[in-house]
Amino acid sequence: MRHVLSALVQNVPGVLSHISGMLASRGYNIDSLAVGETETPHLSRMTFVVVGDDNVLDQVRKQLEKIVTVVQVEDVGSADHVERDLMLIKVSTAQGSRSEVCELAEIFRGRIVDVAPEMVMIEISGQERKIEAFIEMMRPFGIIELVRTGRIAMVRGRNSGE
Amino acid sequence: MRHVLSALVQNVPGVLSHISGMLASRGYNIDSLAVGETETPHLSRMTFVVVGDDNVLDQVRKQLEKIVTVVQVEDVGSADHVERDLMLIKVSTAQGSRSEVCELAEIFRGRIVDVAPEMVMIEISGQERKIEAFIEMMRPFGIIELVRTGRIAMVRGRNSGE
Repeated sequence: MRHVLSALVQNVPGVLSHISGMLASRGYNIDSLAVGETETPHLSRMTFVVVGDDNVLDQVRKQLEKIVTVVQVEDVGSADHVERDLMLIKVSTAQGSRSEVCELAEIFRGRIVDVAPEMVMIEISGQERKIEAFIEMMRPFGIIELVRTGRIAMVRGRNSGE
Repeated sequence: MRHVLSALVQNVPGVLSHISGMLASRGYNIDSLAVGETETPHLSRMTFVVVGDDNVLDQVRKQLEKIVTVVQVEDVGSADHVERDLMLIKVSTAQGSRSEVCELAEIFRGRIVDVAPEMVMIEISGQERKIEAFIEMMRPFGIIELVRTGRIAMVRGRNSGE
């Protein structure tokens, strides 16, 4: 089962190494990781997708909470939440397929960010299954390159970050 | 100076720990990190933003290339490239500011993904300076929570991923 954890960490060198080392040494497999700034300059937020049963989730959470540079750990996946992923994908338009590719990008609410004679680059964000579906739609045209951010997630509705 | 590096790595447990440990032990400071799947199931792509002079960049690159699970390292920032970051931000609309917040989100090409009586959640992607500008615009309303993915980047125009 997939679990989404969000950890608020101090923005100090070595924190990522500490956390990823702990996870690796215990054999927990991270499916996706995103590390980004927050509204507070000295804090970063890491969003992990961990695969395993509830027991694994509980262990990962407890281990994370033991690390001094980890300020707060939240199990976002257990609440009603919004999950997003961002992708840049470069697709071949060598066989005169540009208009078809651009039309599909529009249907998926993607944005064309670069065009060259034989390719287009598309930016697309959304839930994982939307991104995966778009990749499958682009495959027949020829995917030249793609890069994804890993997922971020946020609990719906309540008025406090706590 | 900011440098954007992209590393294609084998999708095996411990690779992140190995890389982040190497960077931390040498005191290189990572400003942003995104780890995501690629078009090939057994490979992931990591996008780093490293702060330092050209010498630091060169050292980081060489160290990365020494790691056996690292397949390829690319200095994306040195070429003409597209850079994107994704954010989810929850903003207070307690003082009857919902329409103003939604209007600003539209101007910045953001998307409203959740609404509650006293807050809205907005999804926004773009270049770092756009995201930063949007955060500044939202600050007076009251930022409840925000989460960012870290940057991803892709070189413009050429037709091959190599």
